[in-house]
Amino acid sequence: MSDRRSLLVLNGPNLNLLGTRRPETYGNTTLADVEAQVRDAAEAADLDVAFLQSNHEGALIDAVHAARGVHAGIVINPGAYSHTSIALHDALEAVQPLPVVEVHISNVHRREAFRHHSYVSPQADAVIVGAGVHGYTLAVAHLAHLLAAGG
Amino acid sequence: MSDRRSLLVLNGPNLNLLGTRRPETYGNTTLADVEAQVRDAAEAADLDVAFLQSNHEGALIDAVHAARGVHAGIVINPGAYSHTSIALHDALEAVQPLPVVEVHISNVHRREAFRHHSYVSPQADAVIVGAGVHGYTLAVAHLAHLLAAGG
Amino acid sequence: MSDRRSLLVLNGPNLNLLGTRRPETYGNTTLADVEAQVRDAAEAADLDVAFLQSNHEGALIDAVHAARGVHAGIVINPGAYSHTSIALHDALEAVQPLPVVEVHISNVHRREAFRHHSYVSPQADAVIVGAGVHGYTLAVAHLAHLLAAGG
Amino acid sequence: MSDRRSLLVLNGPNLNLLGTRRPETYGNTTLADVEAQVRDAAEAADLDVAFLQSNHEGALIDAVHAARGVHAGIVINPGAYSHTSIALHDALEAVQPLPVVEVHISNVHRREAFRHHSYVSPQADAVIVGAGVHGYTLAVAHLAHLLAAGG
Amino acid sequence: MSDRRSLLVLNGPNLNLLGTRRPETYGNTTLADVEAQVRDAAEAADLDVAFLQSNHEGALIDAVHAARGVHAGIVINPGAYSHTSIALHDALEAVQPLPVVEVHISNVHRREAFRHHSYVSPQADAVIVGAGVHGYTLAVAHLAHLLAAGG
Amino acid sequence: MSDRRSLLVLNGPNLNLLGTRRPETYGNTTLADVEAQVRDAAEAADLDVAFLQSNHEGALIDAVHAARGVHAGIVINPGAYSHTSIALHDALEAVQPLPVVEVHISNVHRREAFRHHSYVSPQADAVIVGAGVHGYTLAVAHLAHLLAAGG
Amino acid sequence: MSDRRSLLVLNGPNLNLLGTRRPETYGNTTLADVEAQVRDAAEAADLDVAFLQSNHEGALIDAVHAARGVHAGIVINPGAYSHTSIALHDALEAVQPLPVVEVHISNVHRREAFRHHSYVSPQADAVIVGAGVHGYTLAVAHLAHLLAAGG
Amino acid sequence: MSDRRSLLVLNGPNLNLLGTRRPETYGNTTLADVEAQVRDAAEAADLDVAFLQSNHEGALIDAVHAARGVHAGIVINPGAYSHTSIALHDALEAVQPLPVVEVHISNVHRREAFRHHSYVSPQADAVIVGAGVHGYTLAVAHLAHLLAAGG
Amino acid sequence: MSDRRSLLVLNGPNLNLLGTRRPETYGNTTLADVEAQVRDAAEAADLDVAFLQSNHEGALIDAVHAARGVHAGIVINPGAYSHTSIALHDALEAVQPLPVVEVHISNVHRREAFRHHSYVSPQADAVIVGAGVHGYTLAVAHLAHLLAAGG
Amino acid sequence: MSDRRSLLVLNGPNLNLLGTRRPETYGNTTLADVEAQVRDAAEAADLDVAFLQSNHEGALIDAVHAARGVHAGIVINPGAYSHTSIALHDALEAVQPLPVVEVHISNVHRREAFRHHSYVSPQADAVIVGAGVHGYTLAVAHLAHLLAAGG
Amino acid sequence: MSDRRSLLVLNGPNLNLLGTRRPETYGNTTLADVEAQVRDAAEAADLDVAFLQSNHEGALIDAVHAARGVHAGIVINPGAYSHTSIALHDALEAVQPLPVVEVHISNVHRREAFRHHSYVSPQADAVIVGAGVHGYTLAVAHLAHLLAAGG
Amino acid sequence: MSDRRSLLVLNGPNLNLLGTRRPETYGNTTLADVEAQVRDAAEAADLDVAFLQSNHEGALIDAVHAARGVHAGIVINPGAYSHTSIALHDALEAVQPLPVVEVHISNVHRREAFRHHSYVSPQADAVIVGAGVHGYTLAVAHLAHLLAAGG
Repeated sequence: MSDRRSLLVLNGPNLNLLGTRRPETYGNTTLADVEAQVRDAAEAADLDVAFLQSNHEGALIDAVHAARGVHAGIVINPGAYSHTSIALHDALEAVQPLPVVEVHISNVHRREAFRHHSYVSPQADAVIVGAGVHGYTLAVAHLAHLLAAGG
Repeated sequence: MSDRRSLLVLNGPNLNLLGTRRPETYGNTTLADVEAQVRDAAEAADLDVAFLQSNHEGALIDAVHAARGVHAGIVINPGAYSHTSIALHDALEAVQPLPVVEVHISNVHRREAFRHHSYVSPQADAVIVGAGVHGYTLAVAHLAHLLAAGG
Repeated sequence: MSDRRSLLVLNGPNLNLLGTRRPETYGNTTLADVEAQVRDAAEAADLDVAFLQSNHEGALIDAVHAARGVHAGIVINPGAYSHTSIALHDALEAVQPLPVVEVHISNVHRREAFRHHSYVSPQADAVIVGAGVHGYTLAVAHLAHLLAAGG
Repeated sequence: MSDRRSLLVLNGPNLNLLGTRRPETYGNTTLADVEAQVRDAAEAADLDVAFLQSNHEGALIDAVHAARGVHAGIVINPGAYSHTSIALHDALEAVQPLPVVEVHISNVHRREAFRHHSYVSPQADAVIVGAGVHGYTLAVAHLAHLLAAGG
Repeated sequence: MSDRRSLLVLNGPNLNLLGTRRPETYGNTTLADVEAQVRDAAEAADLDVAFLQSNHEGALIDAVHAARGVHAGIVINPGAYSHTSIALHDALEAVQPLPVVEVHISNVHRREAFRHHSYVSPQADAVIVGAGVHGYTLAVAHLAHLLAAGG
Repeated sequence: MSDRRSLLVLNGPNLNLLGTRRPETYGNTTLADVEAQVRDAAEAADLDVAFLQSNHEGALIDAVHAARGVHAGIVINPGAYSHTSIALHDALEAVQPLPVVEVHISNVHRREAFRHHSYVSPQADAVIVGAGVHGYTLAVAHLAHLLAAGG
Repeated sequence: MSDRRSLLVLNGPNLNLLGTRRPETYGNTTLADVEAQVRDAAEAADLDVAFLQSNHEGALIDAVHAARGVHAGIVINPGAYSHTSIALHDALEAVQPLPVVEVHISNVHRREAFRHHSYVSPQADAVIVGAGVHGYTLAVAHLAHLLAAGG
Repeated sequence: MSDRRSLLVLNGPNLNLLGTRRPETYGNTTLADVEAQVRDAAEAADLDVAFLQSNHEGALIDAVHAARGVHAGIVINPGAYSHTSIALHDALEAVQPLPVVEVHISNVHRREAFRHHSYVSPQADAVIVGAGVHGYTLAVAHLAHLLAAGG
Repeated sequence: MSDRRSLLVLNGPNLNLLGTRRPETYGNTTLADVEAQVRDAAEAADLDVAFLQSNHEGALIDAVHAARGVHAGIVINPGAYSHTSIALHDALEAVQPLPVVEVHISNVHRREAFRHHSYVSPQADAVIVGAGVHGYTLAVAHLAHLLAAGG
Repeated sequence: MSDRRSLLVLNGPNLNLLGTRRPETYGNTTLADVEAQVRDAAEAADLDVAFLQSNHEGALIDAVHAARGVHAGIVINPGAYSHTSIALHDALEAVQPLPVVEVHISNVHRREAFRHHSYVSPQADAVIVGAGVHGYTLAVAHLAHLLAAGG
Repeated sequence: MSDRRSLLVLNGPNLNLLGTRRPETYGNTTLADVEAQVRDAAEAADLDVAFLQSNHEGALIDAVHAARGVHAGIVINPGAYSHTSIALHDALEAVQPLPVVEVHISNVHRREAFRHHSYVSPQADAVIVGAGVHGYTLAVAHLAHLLAAGG
Repeated sequence: MSDRRSLLVLNGPNLNLLGTRRPETYGNTTLADVEAQVRDAAEAADLDVAFLQSNHEGALIDAVHAARGVHAGIVINPGAYSHTSIALHDALEAVQPLPVVEVHISNVHRREAFRHHSYVSPQADAVIVGAGVHGYTLAVAHLAHLLAAGG
């Protein structure tokens, strides 16, 4: 097992379909591709990385809880649960001061009004919106920056 | 295994209690009875049918995803998740152009204000409200009509 | 004159233009075509049927009143008056327990916010939305089902 | 197996972290400690007690359903699902007249506005807010009082 | 033709059904009965009276316009148009200073929220709500009082 | 002491200034004048009448309570407490089925928006607005009518 | 019959009273005067013109429908129906691409809040507000400009 | 005079009618009965108790002020003033850290929307809703618990 | 008795606790201290001054009424009644043109949202917020300025 | 210097890009082209004309102020400041009775909701929306009409 | 250069027109007159004073920034920017703890609803509204009081 | 002059005070420090960079316009104008398809509600919130990524 600090990358509902859903809109990048990119970015920052995708709100909360003492930071794309899950808000609050970066692939501010509010954002240290799948790489870069500064 | 096209009939939270809950209001028709009626209606339209009921939002999303390439249409009674689940909205959007008919047994417009809005409706091709358990039969009839027209 | 029970099919404002308005969207089905389909569906269910289309709110109310003691059920597509007419709501309330099915050809939940609320819905027994002109056939089927059950 | 009537004590999302989360705020009382206190209170009232904590909305609904015919009352702290779960509201409605007491450890009325509304409260017989973990003991006392009065 | 001043009594949509609609709620008093009572009250005050009931918003507006120079006051029960008709509001404004008393048979403040606001009220000199059909008699009494004072 | 049934006439805050406040608007009729008119109207209907004016919400509530078993009906002009006093609403609810007529001298629907809603109205049998001080006479007439009908 | 293209000028509820209602505010210009001015303006632009005023929403809708294939453009002052008639909105949408100019004589933005929104405006090509009866002349000028540009 | 610590039990408007108002709903328990129960509960906890009921907002505020230095805790059922009295909110804030338990006999969350918000709740240490008159006993138990813990 | 014009200084609910409540926030200045300061300021302006503090809304209204013909101006700190008392608004309106200055010791705009609106402000000539107890001195200075200008 | 009366034509933020921004939507007409058209229209009406475009709210306000005594009327297209600038509203109010016509090139009522309200409109004499760049010509025509009528 | 502490008096948009705008409402006092009065008041308090009026939001922000280390306090009448400028709010926050008094000449609470909220008020130490131009003098007096107390 | 593509970095109101304002919160990093970091990041990506900070909304709009044809992308921290400037929204829309990244140093979702909405976000390609001054570096990285992909 690695001695390196590790990050947890959480993806919420419907992100398992990335790349096979609306390819004309979202391109052909799959979640596996994203994970490969993130692994490269983490490696470059000398960090390990673990992944979980789930369509179950409870499974995401369980994973956040389990991150305490195991991971040095969380990248989370909560998908639609961003807009409805106070429970996820509370789970992230409960694991403070673990640093958290929230990522949204699309620019949610150009979409339906119900996507403009995220319960997760007040619990995240940073929020990166609309940068496409590159947003995950930026999130890793920011966590690496925070870890370098803080530790 | 049948060569016939098949429908998926999804029932959301608390619908497992149908027939044993408030019988003076909802009658004694159980979910099993509903499924039998639907099977008859599907048979009459030369369609197979599969059923899932779950109280778990994530399980319903998983089932919608799994319907791609397997089923020719979805009948969904999302129960209370109609009013709160953007994730289900997104799951149905992700499987387009699979035809979807949303069913509500009771007339939700006569009930509490929080039941008047459904996140599922904009993703459904048709919405049938207040027709009792007969609404499932109408939904099957409409999907059969769409399939006959479209293919 | 027929001994059979009859239905009244009411169409509200602008539905006289069906088939000649936005044919690329709504197709070429005219209101006369719809009435022919409904007549077939009613005949199959051993029911007579009468039709009225009006752009006048008051004329629709008058027709609802006149249905008492004459018709066994009402299919109503109130068009834009769905969203603004409390008077129509009251007219339908006044003729209870005459069964009423509200039909909207398009899926109003995908359109402007002002089309998401219908004053008629709480007074209807069932509401069928987005099933195209096939919705009228479903409505006749449901009224036939109700009449068979109730009488 | 006991002949005594029993209570079900349900705890929702993030309550598994009680005592290890924000100890300066919530103290060191763990969920296990709470359960021990509740067991003592139940014993004093000659009642059995069963416990379930879950971060999964669907699991809480399943548990409410399963309580019918098994338990004589429910104490529920729905955590963040209080504010978002109409499905839980419906589950509790479905098991009426089973008595239900809703408990919140903190005074939710002093916290964020989104915690001021609970979908569970209209389905609870009583609601106890802000009494700390002692609120569970009060809830048991009230259920015992109701059972003594009613049976 | 009489030399006496006369009142116009206008009744809006659905009031033609008075007495035959929900008799257990509204009693058996018909609109004809109401008109007889009003005629007696007017006679007692030495006033003539004319009546119009219509389900057509435009017909009510036409009647208000026609009252100028013919009638000395208007009693109007606008029914559901109270809540939706700015055009009726404007018609009454246009015939000022003709005195107007608005009558509602039931106490609209005990009913649906959409009945709590009336566009007619700001244009009426007085508003009498919930006094049953006796409200028409009170309205005539008030107009007689105003006419005695003013002329 | 009289054997006749009696009415209680309650006037709320600032009505003691009637006639001396804004005489160009409200005229010179004082509260004493109003009481004299009401006494005449009550006498004509063979009813006794008692009066109370107070600027204290609690005093009005006390008076409503004390009316039970003493008076046969209440005329109340709650003044500004109409718009803010749920306690007065509850007091009137508590003395049901004592008949209550709410009076407002001016047409509140022409004034500030905060005067358009009255907590008292749902608890009143009838509401008379904008008829000036003559509204009290109409209120007495309506209570006399109700008492004649009811007993 | 003229070979010239013609315009339809529609006036909604209460505009028949123009010039005789509130002359100190609106002046003495009558609807007949307006029509004469419009006829002159149309003549100058080599256009025929037809007029309809109605207090009936349905009659206005009927007239909009009938304009297809007959008129080359519509000038409409919908009066109070601007603010309440979705049916009129739909009628104008149905006759696209017939050019439409909406006119309001007074500056509705200085008046009651309920006059600030018009359902007609999104269906009009241009909206002219507050220019007095001169607004009709400007509307004719703009339609002539559009017809000159487009045809 | 007792050396024991004492509690103040405050009851707000209309609670003087307890037991004589809507007995079919609230039962026959009077405020005197409640006070006897509370006295027993206090005695069991070795606490004195004082009572005040008033329909006057100001009198309740005066009593809260006077409790400083005299009582060790307050049980308050503010009745309808819960929903409207910021002054009571401020009075309770002013006597902090005196512990306060707010009690509502009925489940206010099942009643009118205007009863769902309480200005008192953010100033109370605990809130007990819907436990009937037993809620007072629970409130005393909680204050005894707090006093035992704190001193 | 003095020939000098006098001011009335009214303080509303909870202001009797000034100086003994939250001294770390509000300091040790008591209401008596404030009154002494105001007396000095008034003396400097050659004005008499009278004081009333009450927790009773009705008592404040009574005092406003009694000021007519006695005092030359009112300084009022309505405390929490600012935000809820339309009756106080009406009382101040009734004594116009008596000049009124509203004072709030703290900056209410930095506090809870429900303190941002005052029913009193539209009836005050000037409003002084957040100037601490010095605000009373400024209020006296402004009334003196107005009296010097006007009289 | 001319003896003729002159108009000021003000254009707000981003209108300098007219013709070079979204040419497929707005065409190739530049602001210079518009100004040439306006100059022609003004010349035809025997009026001088001056132009200012600025992206600075303050510069537009300065220009409005400077128009007093210099110009006989203002045509203003406030662009996005229409929706946010109360300061511009006040500037136009300050130069009354200078006639003002507000112009919007596009039909703002078909665009985002935040463009439906204009702070400028209540201060304009007339508002012309959606007539394209021809709207400026109509505005000049209306000001010429007003000046001819008024002077 | 003076050794005395100095105040900055900032006036926002349209205040340059003071005295020449609506003289029947605001009187003939010009901004120069106000500045003279303020200079006298400052002199009496042994304070220097500097003035700036601008219609440009950015210029006001620049001036607030420049006040740090130069002035001992700010009097600001932000005019219409009070209601729309979060940037000004932030500028004042940035220069804390420089004392700030906000002044509005008219009583904004009697005017349009959009003037009832000020972004500046939470950043001001005190707010003086409706005292006319005398409000500036009171503001200087309050800053002198604060400076005397604090320094 | 460089052949390299360049970026424009725009900073809005109050950002000139960075590092000297609330250093305990924002640290000692000045805007000059930020610019140095950005220059390094741009250099590493082989990009030139230009900077502008202004407190004037109009100056920011002018700068956005001027970027067309000069810069290859914009990094913008609009400060408080994010929340109020539709004009800035329109300016960014006008220069499409120039890529834009919006940066906020603090997590605006943890601050006042009026900071939760940004008019700029729908016009930005990506939004980076709460990453501190490191957010500018991430923004440059993202623009470099977009330019590498697109050109």
